[in-house]
Formats: sequence, structure tokens, C-alpha cells
Amino acid sequence: MTVGIFLDLASLPWKISALMSKSYNVAIVGATGAVGVEMIKTLEKRSFPVKSLKLLASAKSVGKKLPFRGEQLSVEELKESAFKGVEIALFSAGATRSREFAAAAKKAGAVMIDNSSAFRMAQDVPLVVPEINAADIKTHQGIIANPNCTAIIMLMALYPLYRVSRIRRVIVSTYQATSGAGAKAMEELQTQTKAFLSGKSVQPEVFPHPIAFNLFSHNTAIMENGYNDEENKVVNESRKILHDAEIRIAPTCIRVPILRAHAESIAVEFEKRVTVERARAVLAKSPGVRLVDDRSKNYFPMPIEASGQDDVLVGRIREDLSNPNGLCLFVAGDQLLKGAALNAVQIAEKL
Amino acid sequence: MTVGIFLDLASLPWKISALMSKSYNVAIVGATGAVGVEMIKTLEKRSFPVKSLKLLASAKSVGKKLPFRGEQLSVEELKESAFKGVEIALFSAGATRSREFAAAAKKAGAVMIDNSSAFRMAQDVPLVVPEINAADIKTHQGIIANPNCTAIIMLMALYPLYRVSRIRRVIVSTYQATSGAGAKAMEELQTQTKAFLSGKSVQPEVFPHPIAFNLFSHNTAIMENGYNDEENKVVNESRKILHDAEIRIAPTCIRVPILRAHAESIAVEFEKRVTVERARAVLAKSPGVRLVDDRSKNYFPMPIEASGQDDVLVGRIREDLSNPNGLCLFVAGDQLLKGAALNAVQIAEKL
Repeated sequence: MTVGIFLDLASLPWKISALMSKSYNVAIVGATGAVGVEMIKTLEKRSFPVKSLKLLASAKSVGKKLPFRGEQLSVEELKESAFKGVEIALFSAGATRSREFAAAAKKAGAVMIDNSSAFRMAQDVPLVVPEINAADIKTHQGIIANPNCTAIIMLMALYPLYRVSRIRRVIVSTYQATSGAGAKAMEELQTQTKAFLSGKSVQPEVFPHPIAFNLFSHNTAIMENGYNDEENKVVNESRKILHDAEIRIAPTCIRVPILRAHAESIAVEFEKRVTVERARAVLAKSPGVRLVDDRSKNYFPMPIEASGQDDVLVGRIREDLSNPNGLCLFVAGDQLLKGAALNAVQIAEKL
Repeated sequence: MTVGIFLDLASLPWKISALMSKSYNVAIVGATGAVGVEMIKTLEKRSFPVKSLKLLASAKSVGKKLPFRGEQLSVEELKESAFKGVEIALFSAGATRSREFAAAAKKAGAVMIDNSSAFRMAQDVPLVVPEINAADIKTHQGIIANPNCTAIIMLMALYPLYRVSRIRRVIVSTYQATSGAGAKAMEELQTQTKAFLSGKSVQPEVFPHPIAFNLFSHNTAIMENGYNDEENKVVNESRKILHDAEIRIAPTCIRVPILRAHAESIAVEFEKRVTVERARAVLAKSPGVRLVDDRSKNYFPMPIEASGQDDVLVGRIREDLSNPNGLCLFVAGDQLLKGAALNAVQIAEKL
């Protein structure tokens, strides 16, 4: 009985929103992936006005069922004809798939919200964190890109401060969860850890190095400048999102044995001095951010508390001991939610 | 048979050294702790000229046996009279014990090499990393302090570069292993992880927060300046070791679910530009450092490879994208060895 009542209440909001406003035919490309699954949940949780939901994935996932609003939806094969009638296509199946099916989505008249890196730096593609540059959405030509997860989580903490004083320089070291490399990588962390604890040998498959009780430089190729692909994304995408080509950023991206929330240690240099008190006050009232900054209890942002949360946790706000115009902070945000699925759905909401 | 021959060969070096040079009555205070155990192993491995070895610990460990050069030595109770005849006392039982028994060690005529933070910043106590400031040892008044593990590991990578150009500023974010909080903390990481993987609830005991698949700001009290005790140690001890009160350091110390090697992401600003090539060449020939810096194979320092190693691994050396006079690097070093036991024994060797 109790369960029945609870379900009814939970499904009310979308029923109301469906009655009140236009609703859309939505497709999720890569629906069975770690981000895809969160996209389905996020559409439901935020009562996005979905008229129909099409779950698309590769042939091997066809027939698999995933829950949405109390129903079990079947996964269909990702092919060009699948986009017929789709108005909003949320892509999260990797850059190759995004490039392959962008034209089909466009031809069908769908707006593509792409979680991959395929089009992020293209001039005619807005790259959007809704709390920061929602206005860019209206310049879209059929594709809107969802930024890199590490960049989103960092900028959620920095943008409210950027509005107080322009930021000149950022030095960021990350503690990135395995979810960023997909569901298989999350599984590998658990399987390897079990093996290690039973004294068995550990064989890396998804990652190039063991991840159980280990950490390593981010597993993307190192570019000419000595920075890996992930780090270069943080630099270039942050500049594009902030509309500031001059901001200097030095990132070090590290993969750690964590399941699904990224943490980041950030040293930021402002044009004008920003006090700790001011930073706290500004962040405390910023949407999408939660201040977790209790020095007396030694209580600051942690991945386990950021997991499953929409908000990016920000804390350890203190003066940079090495720079009078600097602050240091520590953040944690769910890589699958604000770092991916939630941000994509928020873009769809703003459309 | 093979085993017999192997043991004979292994015990040869100390027999030779005992014949060739003076040997010493050594005591280890805190012999059953994570660092204490490594001190015993390190004395043996490095063929330190030990005449007698006394293992001291709290009453509850008395009678426990630990191996040294093929013998089983019994743990004795730590009390003032235990220092009689001791010439070198390696302390690693926490700052309280060090303060409590320093006078007894001194009265017995022993030189105290203290791994705790008790005397590190005292004016008449040299704070020594032998590769950096071995000369300071001769100023000792009976106590020589072993620096904080995070500071040692960082300075092993930075000092060779400091000699090329003075360092003005360091921003460091750490990835610190559980071993820094002792053997029980290492056990807690494993027990909690097992519990988590079996779907059981996780109850933190040693650490204030769960450590299984989680990370958090270092579990030491936050001081007035917003930095925790560990971070302030990194700042103050680095200045003392480098004899440079002006170097500016902003550390962020984070505990990660790793067993026994600390990693650190370091951005360093020089007085004069130091190229990546120069830094690599200098570090490649620095004692106690191993260059692990293969961009094409994405192969850089990792805690699992630093564990059990004497050398501090240094890599990911690249220009700081945000500063023309800066370099970024990533290091990993065994917290129990170079971060503690090895450095202490090296100090004893230099005495």
C-alpha cells in the first residue's frame, strides 16, 4: 500500500508538466552506458516533458529493457532511421558515434545534445554549462555540446567567483573517478579490488594500469605540449565556456580508485583580491553549488557525499599561502550527473 | 640447500661491515608500528652496523617477536631504563612518546633520530633529508628530526631543480596513502573495502570518514590560516630543510584509498626558467630519485610502483601552461620508506 502511494506521488510532477506545456520526442543514444542510464533517470527525476522516449544503443544491447516512469522500455538499435520523429537527441556513446550519426539526427530535425568531445570546439557549436552560459544555446545550428566532466565541475565552483573578479590563472589537480571511463571501468575497479583483497593477481583490461589501490595519470594520449587529452580539454573548453581566451590553466588529471564522483584541488588567482568570506558568501547562494566547508569538524567535499547529488560540493576555501590574490579550494561533483547526464538534460530544459 | 646458501649470502654484508667498522647499539621505539617494522627491515637491508638491536614498544606488545638478520627479537617495554647502553635510538611512536622519552634517551647517551613532529621545528634540532642537507646533522645536540613524509617526497623531486634555479613558489596537491596514519589505518582501508564490496555498511574507526572508495581532506586539525596541520608541516619543514624562509608553498593534503605510497601533483615556479629537458637531465642523475616519464607509453609515477622502493619516482615533467617560469610534475614515493624509515636510517648512516 505504502509503495503504491509513493509511486503515485512520484509520478505526479511529470503528469502535471505534460498537461501544462509542450512535450517532446526524446532519444538517448548510448542508453545502456553509465551516462545513458543516468540520463533516463534524470529525465524522470526532473519531470522533463517527454512525449516519447527512444533508447538507442549498439546492436548487442537491443532488446535490453530499462525503466522509465514505471514502464520498461526496450533498447532499439542505433541506426540512421532510428531518429525519425525525434526532436531532442541526447548523445552519450562516444565521439565516433556522435560524428557518425550527427547528420542523421539533424536530417530528422532533432536537436543533438552531445556529451562526447566530437563537436565541443567547433565554432558553430555552443558548449554550455547552463548556470554559466545558457545564453549561448540560442546560437546553435542543430548541435549543442555538453562539456568535459572535469571542466564542468571545476567551472561550477569557479564561475560564481569569476563574477566577483576576473580569474587570471588556475592550477588544478584532479582526483577522477572511474565512471569517467564508463560502466566497465567502474566494474573493473570493483573486480580488481576484490581480486587484490583475495591475494589474486590483478589484470587491467579497461585501464592501462591497475586501478585497485592505485592511481595514475589520466589514460588519454599525451599531446605535443606534454598535457594529456583530458587536460587540454579542461583548458580549451573552460576558455570557450567562460568566453575568456586569456585565462591561463594548468591541469593535472589523475585517475583514482573512486567510483563516480570527481574531486579537484584548485588554486585560483584573481585580478583583484577576493576574500575567503566573500567567496563563501557568493558560493553559498550559487545555484548548483553546495558549500561544504566546516573547518572545526574537518568536514569538506568528499566523493561519497557528492555521488548521486546534483550539486557540486565546494569547500576548503582558504587564502593561497603563496599568492595574495589567490584562493585555494577543494570540490567534488558527481561525474555522471552534473559532469554529464544532468548538465545535458539541463541544456534540453533551456532549449 | 639453495635456501641455506641464499641466507648465508644475504647475511654476509653485515658480517663484513661489522668486522670493518665500529658497530652500534641501536634501539627502535615503536618497533611494532608500520614505520618501526620498516626500520628493522631497512637496518638489515642496508647492512647498518648494528651491534645490538633493542625493539621497544608499549606494554601490550611486549613479548611479540620480530625478525632481524634471521633471528627473532623480542619486543621489550618502552620505559626510561630501556635506553641503557643505547647509542642510536630511532623513534617512531608518535610525538607524545618522543617528548616523553627524549630525556631518557639523551641521559643514556643515545642520539635520538625522531620520526615524529615533536622536535622538528626546534631551533637546536636539525631536520634532515640526507640528499639535501646532510651537513646540518653535525649541529645536533642529541636529537635529529626526520621530516614529514609528504615534505620529504616533495623535496626529493624539487631539490635537484632548486639547485638549477631557486624556487619561488610551489603549489602541491597530495594523494596520501593510509600508511601515513599507521598500520591500523592500512588495515581499515582493506576491511572497509571488503565490507563495501559485500554490500555491508562501512564504519570508520581510525579515520573520521569512510576511506573505502572515498577520499578526504587530511585528517589533521585545521589551523587559524585555514590549512591543516599536515599542510603547515609541509610549508614550515620545507623552508627549514631548504634554508629558505622565503619560498612560498600552498599545499592541499588529501587522503586517498591507497596503501603505502604518497603521490603529489606539483606546480613549481622558478626564479629563472628551467626547461623540461634540463629538469629531466638533472633528475635522471639525482640520487634517491628515479625518472619515470614516458609520454608515448603514458607511463608515469604510480603508488603501486613506488611501494617498497627506496627511490622517489618523478615524472610528467612539463611546462606549466599558466606560467613561463614554471614546471609541473607528478611524484610518488613510499611513505614508509623514504617518507619515514629509510630517511631515518640514512640519517643514522651519516652520523
